[in-house]
Amino acid sequence: MAAITGNLVVGQSGGPTAVINQSLVGVVQEALKHGSIQSILGARNGVEGVLREDFIDLRKQSAQTLEDVAATASAGLGSCRFKPKEEDCKKIFEIFTRHNVRYFFYIGGNDSALSAGIINKIAQEQKYDLCVFHCPKTIDNDLLVTDHCPGFGSAAKYVAQAFMGHDLDNRALPGIKIDVVMGRNAGWLTAASALARVNPGDGPHVICLPERSYTVAEFCRKIEDVYTKNKRALVAVSEGLCDKDGNVWLQSDLVRRELKELGMEALINWMDATGRIEDSAGGAKLDAFGHAQLSGSGALADLLASILKIYMFQKTGKKPRLRADTLGYAQRSFAGCVSEVDAREARASGAAAVREAVNGAMSGSICFRRTGSGGYNCETFRAALEDVSGVNFPKGVKQYRPMEDRLITTDKFDVTPEFVEWARPLLGALPVKGILTP
Amino acid sequence: MAAITGNLVVGQSGGPTAVINQSLVGVVQEALKHGSIQSILGARNGVEGVLREDFIDLRKQSAQTLEDVAATASAGLGSCRFKPKEEDCKKIFEIFTRHNVRYFFYIGGNDSALSAGIINKIAQEQKYDLCVFHCPKTIDNDLLVTDHCPGFGSAAKYVAQAFMGHDLDNRALPGIKIDVVMGRNAGWLTAASALARVNPGDGPHVICLPERSYTVAEFCRKIEDVYTKNKRALVAVSEGLCDKDGNVWLQSDLVRRELKELGMEALINWMDATGRIEDSAGGAKLDAFGHAQLSGSGALADLLASILKIYMFQKTGKKPRLRADTLGYAQRSFAGCVSEVDAREARASGAAAVREAVNGAMSGSICFRRTGSGGYNCETFRAALEDVSGVNFPKGVKQYRPMEDRLITTDKFDVTPEFVEWARPLLGALPVKGILTP
Repeated sequence: MAAITGNLVVGQSGGPTAVINQSLVGVVQEALKHGSIQSILGARNGVEGVLREDFIDLRKQSAQTLEDVAATASAGLGSCRFKPKEEDCKKIFEIFTRHNVRYFFYIGGNDSALSAGIINKIAQEQKYDLCVFHCPKTIDNDLLVTDHCPGFGSAAKYVAQAFMGHDLDNRALPGIKIDVVMGRNAGWLTAASALARVNPGDGPHVICLPERSYTVAEFCRKIEDVYTKNKRALVAVSEGLCDKDGNVWLQSDLVRRELKELGMEALINWMDATGRIEDSAGGAKLDAFGHAQLSGSGALADLLASILKIYMFQKTGKKPRLRADTLGYAQRSFAGCVSEVDAREARASGAAAVREAVNGAMSGSICFRRTGSGGYNCETFRAALEDVSGVNFPKGVKQYRPMEDRLITTDKFDVTPEFVEWARPLLGALPVKGILTP
Repeated sequence: MAAITGNLVVGQSGGPTAVINQSLVGVVQEALKHGSIQSILGARNGVEGVLREDFIDLRKQSAQTLEDVAATASAGLGSCRFKPKEEDCKKIFEIFTRHNVRYFFYIGGNDSALSAGIINKIAQEQKYDLCVFHCPKTIDNDLLVTDHCPGFGSAAKYVAQAFMGHDLDNRALPGIKIDVVMGRNAGWLTAASALARVNPGDGPHVICLPERSYTVAEFCRKIEDVYTKNKRALVAVSEGLCDKDGNVWLQSDLVRRELKELGMEALINWMDATGRIEDSAGGAKLDAFGHAQLSGSGALADLLASILKIYMFQKTGKKPRLRADTLGYAQRSFAGCVSEVDAREARASGAAAVREAVNGAMSGSICFRRTGSGGYNCETFRAALEDVSGVNFPKGVKQYRPMEDRLITTDKFDVTPEFVEWARPLLGALPVKGILTP
């Protein structure tokens, strides 16, 4: 099929990453090679910009600007957390028709794949020839079909380097240190903390993932064990840490019940007081996709540190050095911590999407699969948009990919060597971790 | 005066930095050149290791190990927060005499300078020939006499890169973002967030320093103004944010009174609940030097975000996107974010201390001063230990160096261009921050 002639719109959506601009520049650089593509328009703030008809002319950017933007963290076009409704999609097509847009590339995570899926579905229904491609990006690495997602490698590198530092810090001034890592549903990024281990005894010594559930008692006992043995403990905890009903700890009745049994009423009062703040500020915060806000607050880390402080004091009458950090937005946007593999693949995925489209494919999501043996090799392939977006999935089928059982140890407090082997090439080179000979 | 022949002990103390091991390796490499220095011993965990007679033989380390350790964040010998008492110092001299230790190098911040000062004073009283040198290190940059401290440049680079990323993130998904930065008494590190500004409109748009005091009302109004004008606001706040009585906000009665007046009782309840957690865990936490623990908790950032959430909701009935991060321990120990200038100077300060000692100086603190004009040039010099440690200072004279008035804007919500010019060379190269042409 001959390539359709018309204009191109590219947008970025969802939480930024260190390499989402690499994918954008990959789209633009490839589009510039093809005569069937006329205007190359960047929609500001994703579909919100389409609806506002707020476009940047990407043909006007110099080659140097494009390279600078590619090397810059976060979304150069701006991003959004907007889920288009039926009437929004109608307006989008009106705008696309008026501008003769025939190529739409949406760089984003699973929510963005869903948006692209909805737009594609309506395009088909309206028999409007529109190539709709999703270029995966997410630090969470929880997209379906693909081996891994652009954005994950750099975020994992940041997490590994943060844990290398926190482990060295915890060696120098021993105590219990808890770090809360991003990842609502899937533990890939929390698991990447394991890549910080280089020398014997290195932390993290405990890793808690959202794929498993934890009671307060077993969480405390595990850390107490490690601390008793090593005189220090570095703990990686996913922000999605949940109880056996699947509720995150800060909103868990089971956790409250346990805290009561453990004589930690002060913490229940604190949790209640935390909840009442939201009421004063206009009620609980859910994003446009109905997800609870877990990032952008240190509450979970502070809760965990407080639980352990009280627990250790109850047990020993002593107060070990206890600190907690929430790694925060630096995980997705810290400037200057990019995996070279991730940057290259993100660029390649944008280019691959354009090539697929001009070669006649009407829709898809650009995924990665490993090829060959002996070292790390990966290639892109086009998956059906529906398989990634989950737009047609029956109710109850997950639209994201959790870590597989074989990647988590049976005691649920660590990852397996298989995970480390899988993840290592995605992070690229890590800093040296020298130690003195005793 | 001929160099004293004997053994050398080197230790590291206080909070680690990205380059404290550079200073250690500087000491060792220089010591290896001088025949008057016999054993080169590393005390594990600073003076605690001296008291335990827990030493590492640093002559045994290979050249490669030393280079690897130098390139590694945090304190390779381990650190401590221990302030030696009279009887500890007596024991230290007993141990030093027994081991014929004649050179003692202590790499640390102002608390460590004080420890070195006490040991030096007792050595003089006991007429024991001991060269005592302090090698400054602190991310806080708050030591007296020196132009700047090894450790600051790398921490400032981390802060600047974090803010570059958070600014790009805040551009992509606009809202109010608050970042809490380390620095108990001095705002140098918080001020370094200004180095993240590259393009017009870049944040941080508001910088709050511990050298000034702030009311809740003026803090909220300032951020509201910025947000109204720019539709986004990135805010840098020192963990030492205080009221006009000098009390940090989390422990401030004035802040509570204001919160009450502003109808934010939910926050007072939350502050009370937070305080009661400490009681359950054995009481309020002060370190060995009597300082309140400000780091290792997200409480201040969460308080500020909550204040603004309620304030903006009261004012507008809307809920802007509001997030807060506490930059945390990554500021001092993140692996792989080192200023090359800082690394070089940290190494040089260790070497300079040894040279001063073998050349006959009995004590000192190695400081930096800028030389010449046209570009950045710095040299080391020996300051009197007493002038840095403050060991003989009259009561009430500060033992640390706050930011000078000329470095802070008169509206107290920003730093001056003079600060930026002073700081820029210390951070070394920063990542590119490319933006698309509209």
